[in-house]
Amino acid sequence: VVDRDVTRVVSPGTLTDEALMDAGEPAAVAAAHPLKDGRVALAWAELSTGAFGFAAVDADEAAGELARLSVAELLFSDPDDGSVPPATEALRRALDVPASPRPGYTFRPAEAVTLLKRQFGVADLGGFGLGDDDPALPAVGAVLAYLHETQRTDPQTGRLPHLQPPRRLDRAGSLIIDAASLASLEVVRTQAAAGASGETAGSLLGVLSGNGKATRTPMGGRLLRRWLCFPLRDAEAIGRRQDVVASLADDGRFVNELSVQLKRIQDVPRIAGRLGVGRLTPRDLVALGRSVAAARTLAEVLGGREPVAPFHDRLDPLVGPLMGLAETLDDTCLQEDAPSHLRAGGVFCDGFDRELDAQRDLMQHGDRWLAAYQQEMSEKLGIPVKVGFNKVFGYYLELTAVQAAKLHDRDAATAGWTRKQTLKNAERYITAELKDHETRVLAAEDRAIARELELFAGLCDQAAQRIPQLQAYAELAAELDVLLLFAERAAKGGHCRPTLVDGPVLDVAGGRHPALDELLGTGFVANAIHLGGAGRAPLALLTGPNMAGKSTYIRQAALLTLLAHTGAFLPAESATVGLTDRIFTRVGAQDQLHAGRSTFMVEMTEAAEICRHAGPHSLVILDEIGRGTSTYDGLSLAWAIAEHLEAVGCRTLFATHYHELTALAGTRSGIANLHVKARPLNGEMVFLHTVEPGATDRSYGVEVARLAGMPPAVTDRAGSLLEAFEEKAAGSADRVPP
Amino acid sequence: VVDRDVTRVVSPGTLTDEALMDAGEPAAVAAAHPLKDGRVALAWAELSTGAFGFAAVDADEAAGELARLSVAELLFSDPDDGSVPPATEALRRALDVPASPRPGYTFRPAEAVTLLKRQFGVADLGGFGLGDDDPALPAVGAVLAYLHETQRTDPQTGRLPHLQPPRRLDRAGSLIIDAASLASLEVVRTQAAAGASGETAGSLLGVLSGNGKATRTPMGGRLLRRWLCFPLRDAEAIGRRQDVVASLADDGRFVNELSVQLKRIQDVPRIAGRLGVGRLTPRDLVALGRSVAAARTLAEVLGGREPVAPFHDRLDPLVGPLMGLAETLDDTCLQEDAPSHLRAGGVFCDGFDRELDAQRDLMQHGDRWLAAYQQEMSEKLGIPVKVGFNKVFGYYLELTAVQAAKLHDRDAATAGWTRKQTLKNAERYITAELKDHETRVLAAEDRAIARELELFAGLCDQAAQRIPQLQAYAELAAELDVLLLFAERAAKGGHCRPTLVDGPVLDVAGGRHPALDELLGTGFVANAIHLGGAGRAPLALLTGPNMAGKSTYIRQAALLTLLAHTGAFLPAESATVGLTDRIFTRVGAQDQLHAGRSTFMVEMTEAAEICRHAGPHSLVILDEIGRGTSTYDGLSLAWAIAEHLEAVGCRTLFATHYHELTALAGTRSGIANLHVKARPLNGEMVFLHTVEPGATDRSYGVEVARLAGMPPAVTDRAGSLLEAFEEKAAGSADRVPP
Repeated sequence: VVDRDVTRVVSPGTLTDEALMDAGEPAAVAAAHPLKDGRVALAWAELSTGAFGFAAVDADEAAGELARLSVAELLFSDPDDGSVPPATEALRRALDVPASPRPGYTFRPAEAVTLLKRQFGVADLGGFGLGDDDPALPAVGAVLAYLHETQRTDPQTGRLPHLQPPRRLDRAGSLIIDAASLASLEVVRTQAAAGASGETAGSLLGVLSGNGKATRTPMGGRLLRRWLCFPLRDAEAIGRRQDVVASLADDGRFVNELSVQLKRIQDVPRIAGRLGVGRLTPRDLVALGRSVAAARTLAEVLGGREPVAPFHDRLDPLVGPLMGLAETLDDTCLQEDAPSHLRAGGVFCDGFDRELDAQRDLMQHGDRWLAAYQQEMSEKLGIPVKVGFNKVFGYYLELTAVQAAKLHDRDAATAGWTRKQTLKNAERYITAELKDHETRVLAAEDRAIARELELFAGLCDQAAQRIPQLQAYAELAAELDVLLLFAERAAKGGHCRPTLVDGPVLDVAGGRHPALDELLGTGFVANAIHLGGAGRAPLALLTGPNMAGKSTYIRQAALLTLLAHTGAFLPAESATVGLTDRIFTRVGAQDQLHAGRSTFMVEMTEAAEICRHAGPHSLVILDEIGRGTSTYDGLSLAWAIAEHLEAVGCRTLFATHYHELTALAGTRSGIANLHVKARPLNGEMVFLHTVEPGATDRSYGVEVARLAGMPPAVTDRAGSLLEAFEEKAAGSADRVPP
Repeated sequence: VVDRDVTRVVSPGTLTDEALMDAGEPAAVAAAHPLKDGRVALAWAELSTGAFGFAAVDADEAAGELARLSVAELLFSDPDDGSVPPATEALRRALDVPASPRPGYTFRPAEAVTLLKRQFGVADLGGFGLGDDDPALPAVGAVLAYLHETQRTDPQTGRLPHLQPPRRLDRAGSLIIDAASLASLEVVRTQAAAGASGETAGSLLGVLSGNGKATRTPMGGRLLRRWLCFPLRDAEAIGRRQDVVASLADDGRFVNELSVQLKRIQDVPRIAGRLGVGRLTPRDLVALGRSVAAARTLAEVLGGREPVAPFHDRLDPLVGPLMGLAETLDDTCLQEDAPSHLRAGGVFCDGFDRELDAQRDLMQHGDRWLAAYQQEMSEKLGIPVKVGFNKVFGYYLELTAVQAAKLHDRDAATAGWTRKQTLKNAERYITAELKDHETRVLAAEDRAIARELELFAGLCDQAAQRIPQLQAYAELAAELDVLLLFAERAAKGGHCRPTLVDGPVLDVAGGRHPALDELLGTGFVANAIHLGGAGRAPLALLTGPNMAGKSTYIRQAALLTLLAHTGAFLPAESATVGLTDRIFTRVGAQDQLHAGRSTFMVEMTEAAEICRHAGPHSLVILDEIGRGTSTYDGLSLAWAIAEHLEAVGCRTLFATHYHELTALAGTRSGIANLHVKARPLNGEMVFLHTVEPGATDRSYGVEVARLAGMPPAVTDRAGSLLEAFEEKAAGSADRVPP
C-alpha cells in the first residue's frame, strides 16, 4: 500500500544521523584527482554541516591537507578495470579511510560547472572565485555529483539547501602541518599502539577539550579541532583572538553568563544539515526550537562589551529571524519529550491542530466504547466478559471455560458471537460490532500519524528557509565557545599571552608540554626554549639519556608554537614566537613491508621532504635521525642534514644519540648543544627532566634496560662490554671530521 | 497497541546481526579479572557462534591470549569510582577495544557457579573441568552474566540455547604467539601506518584466504584465522591434517566435488547464533534450509574416501536430523526470495497455511471490490470517477474540478458523499461504503502479517532444537574448507610437506615468504634457512644493507615455522621444522609517550620478556636491537643479549646494523654470521635479496638516502663524512672486547 523509494545512500563520508556520528569529529567526503601538471585537485564537503571547500595542491601535500580536514571517505575516478590507482591507494592508506570509485564523467570540468550553477542558482561561478578553467573543478564537481546522487535533494530545485558555496582553501593563510607531523605530535589523536588506532583522549585536542566535556557546544568542540589543524599565520588575526581571550580571562562573571547562554544552543549545524537532506527527527526540531530561543538573550549578554562587540554585531541581524522560528517551534506546538522517530506519532501537542485532535479523540473514544461494550455484554449475559486484544485476530471477547460451557443457556444474547480460539481455561469470541469498532480505531491511529507527518513536513519547510541564519548563528556560537575555553584555561593555568613577531625566533621561559602537563599533573618540569633571535643559534642538538624527556621537550616546542598561532595562551612564564609557515617533524616510524619500504627508507623519505621544503620561517623537529642503518652511515647522514638545516636557517630541534654530532657546535655558529640532565644514584637513574646548555656524553642505555626488567646477568655483561668499548674509543682521539 | 520491550542491548562484543559484522572476523566479548596470585582470570564468548572459553594466565600473557581470540569488547569489574584500573587500561590499549565496566558482584565465583548451572542445566560443573574454586570462575561468570543481561534468553529456561559449554584454553596444546609478534609478523592484519589501523589485506591471513574469497564458507575463513593464531604443537595432530592436505592436493576432481557441496553451506554457525538469541531473519531461515539440504550429498561425496573418513564418520549421524530440518524448510514452505525483515510479510508460500491464505484472499478480493465500486460509481454518475488512496485520509473518490462543478445535477447519486479535499484540478470525496471496505482491507493485511509472525516463530522453535547438530555440521564443514584451501595452495604453488621433528632445528631449502611471495609475484627470491641441528649454530646474526630484505628474511623464518604447525604445506623446496613452543619477535616499535614510555623502553621491555621466557624450543626473531640509545650502549646490550640467547640454545635470527657484533661468530660455536647481498652498480644499489653465510661490513645507508630523494648536496656531504669516519675507525684496530 505504501511505496518506498530509495531516497539516499549511506556512506562513511555522508553521514548525517546523530546516532551514527561522533559529536566532536567532523566527517567529510573528499575527492582527489591528479592533474596533468603534477598537482592534485582536491575538494571536500561536510554533509552534516554544509561546509564545502577545494584546492589544487602539490601531489606530496594532498595527504596532509586531507588529514587536517578529517576526511572519512575518498572519491576517485574509476579507471574501469577494478583497480585503485597507486596515488589514490597511497592517499587512502595515509588517511586510513575507504575509497569509493566514481564514474569518470563526474570528474569532467564542464559537468562541474553545470552542477555548481544549478546547485547554487547562479549564472556564473566568478562569485566563488572559480573560473571555468580552475584546476580544482574536477574534484569539486565529483563531490557535488556524489552528494546529489546519494542524498535527497529538494524536489523542486534539485538542490541541497544547506550546502554552502565552495570556498578555496587559503594555504598561505594558515600554518601548514603535514599528516606525519599531525600524527607524531598527537594533535588530534594519540599515536597508534601496534595494531591499534589512535584516540582523541590524551591528544592535544583531547586534553584542551577535556575529552569533549570542556566545550559548551558540539560545534565548539569541532571548531577547536579545526583551529588546531589550521592555525593562523596572520599576526593581526591572532591578536584579535588573543584580545578576546585576555579580556574574558579577567572576567569570570561574564564568562559564566556567556556559558549559560551557549549551553542552550545544541548541535545546530548538524540539525541544519539533516534539515537540508530531509532527515530531521522530531527531537531535532525540539532541540532547534530551544537553540534559537537563546538568540535574544545571547545578544543581550554580548551587548555593550567592547572585546566581544564584533560578535554582537554579527548576531544582531540574526535575532529577528531566529526568534521568529523560536516562536513557531515553541512548547504549544511540540511536545517536550518528542520521540526520535516520527513513525509512532506523539510529536505535536494537543490543541495545536484541529484535524489531529479529531483523530486522537476518536482513538480515546474507542477506549471508552470498549469499556462500555464489555459492561453491556457482561450485563446481558449476567457473567463477567472480558475484552482482549491480540495481533493475530484483533479484539475479542473472552469467557472462562466454565462460563463458556454454560453459554447454550444464553443463546439469544450470543447469537452473533463467533468462536475464534480455545485456550486451556478460556474461550475467545468475536462479534460484528467489535470488529467494526476495531477497524475504525486502527484507522484513526493511522490517520493521526499521517497527519503528524504532514504537520512535521510543514515545520521543516519553514525551518529550512532559515538555514543560512542557523549556520551563521552556530558559527558565531562555536567561536565564542572556543575563545571561552581558551580564556578559562588561561585563567586557571596562569598561562601567558605569547608575543607573535616576524623573525625566526622561539623564546619560551618556563614552558610546559600543553597536553602532558595536565596528564602528568604537577610533576611536570618546566623548561626554557631559545632558538634563533639575538645571537642565539637557530639549531639546537639535544643529547641525554633515554627516558629523560628528549622527545617530550622537542614535541613541546612544536606544540607551543602551534598553539601560539591559534590565539590560545601558553603554559609558560613568557613566550615570543616568530610567525611560522610550516612545522615539520621526523619522529618514530614503522616498517611498511607490504609497501616495500623499510623503516630506514621511511625515515629518509621524510627527512628528504624536510630538507627540500623547510624555509627560514619553518620549525623542524628531528628525533634520532639515522637510527635505521649502521653506525657510521647514520652518523654521516645526521651530520650532513644538520649542516643543511643550519644553512637554511630554520628553527630546528635535533634530538640525537650520536654524541659525535655535538662537536658541530664548536665549529658552526648556527648550531648549539643542549642536554637533558640525569644522574645515577645508588644504582638507579634519577631523571631531572631539566634541559640545559651543553652536551652530555652518556645515554644510560644499560640502566634503562635494567629498569625494563632485563635479567641482571645480561645487564651486568652489557655494562662491562660498554666499559671496554668506551676505553677503546677513547684511544681514537677526537672524532670531528673536516 | 503493540507493547515494545527492550529485549537486548547491542555492544561491540555481542553483535549477531549479519549486516553489522565482518564475515571473516570473529568478535568475542571477554572478561579479565586480576587474581591474588598475580595471574589474570580470562573468559571469552562469541555470541554469534556460541563458542565459550576460559583460562587463568600470567598477567603479562593476558594481552597475547586475548589478541589471538579477536576480542571486540572487554569487561572489567567496576571499581565504582569511574576509573579504569591500570591493568585493564593496558589490556584495552593493547587490544584496541572498548572496555565496559560491570558490577563487581558479577565477578563473584559463587555467582558464576549458580549462573553456569542454570545456563547448562547441570548440577555440577565437573563435566566442564571447572571446580567450584577454579581461578577462572570470576571471568567466566562475568561473561555469562553479561550475555544473559544483554540478550534475550529463552523465556522458559532462562538460557541462551546456542551457547556451548565453556572450554579451558589448552595453552600447552598450541604454539604460543604474543600480541606484539602477531602484529609484527602481520599474521592476521598488516601493521598500522601512522594514525591508521591495520587491515587484513596484505597479511598472512589475507593472502592465504584470498581476502576471504578463497574459502568456500564464512566459517572456513574464520577457522583459518583460528588455526593461524593457535597453531598445533602435537606432531600427530599436525600429521593428520597434512595427510588430508596431501591426498586432496593430488585429486583435483575430488576437491571440486567437495567444493561444490561446501559452497552450498552458508554461515550456519552465525545463523544458529541468531536462532539462539531470537534474532533470526526470514532470509536466514531460507539460507539454513539450503545449507542443511547439502548434508546428505556431502556425506555421499565423503563416503569411501580413506583420508577423509573421520569427517564422514562425524557427519554420518547428523544427516538424519539435518535432512529432517531441510524437509521442513523446503520451497513449499518458504518463498525463495524471502525478505530480510518479517514486518512486511511475504515470507511463506501460498498454500502452506490455510489461515494465511484466507487473509491474503481477503486482501486480493479487496482490490477486485475497489475496481467494481469505481465502475459502479462511474456508471451511476455517467462520468469517470477515480478511486485513489493517500495516507492522511485513506481511500477516496476523485472527480476532476470540471465534473465536480456539475455534481449538483446528480444529488441523488452522491447523497452519501463527503467532500474531503479540494485540489487545483480535482475534488476528493469519501463514502461510508468506501471507508467500511478500507478498514476491512487494512485489517486483513495486519492479520496476514501477524499470522506469518506466528508461523515463523514455530519454525524457529523447530530449528532451535537442532542447534547442537548445526554447530557440529558447521565445524566439520569449516575444517574441510580450510584443508581444501591448504591443498589447493599446495598443488598450485608446488609447496612441500614439512617434516616436524622434536629437536630445536629449522632447516628450509628454497624458502619463500608466504605472504610477500604472492604479493610481489615472481620476483621474490627464495632463500635457505639453517638454524640448529647437526653441527649448525642455532643463532644467526644477519647483516647487510638497508632495503636488501633482512626484515623480510627473518619474518619469513617465523611465518614458515608458524605455518608448518597449522598443517599447511610450505612455499619451499623442502623443510624440516622442530616442534616449537613459542615464537618471539622484537621488531619495530613506536613511542608511547602518553604512557610515559620511550621507544627504547618499549624495545627493552620486549627484549627483557624474550630473555626471561625463551626456552630451548622457542624461535626468536630480533630486528635491530639497541637502536634507540647511543652507539656503545646499544652495541653492548645487543652483544649481551646475543650471548644470553646462545646460552639458552633457542633458534634465533638476529638482524643488526652493528657490524661489530659479527665478531661473536668467531668465538662462540652457537653463533653464525649471515648477510644479504647487494652491490653498487653505476652509482645505483643492486639488491640481490640472497642470504649467504658470512658477515658484510657495509650498510649503504647513504645510497638509500639518495634513493629516498635527499638533496644531492646532503648525500654528497654524508658520503665524504662517512669516508672520514671509517678511516678513523680503521685506525682503532679490532674492536672485539674480552
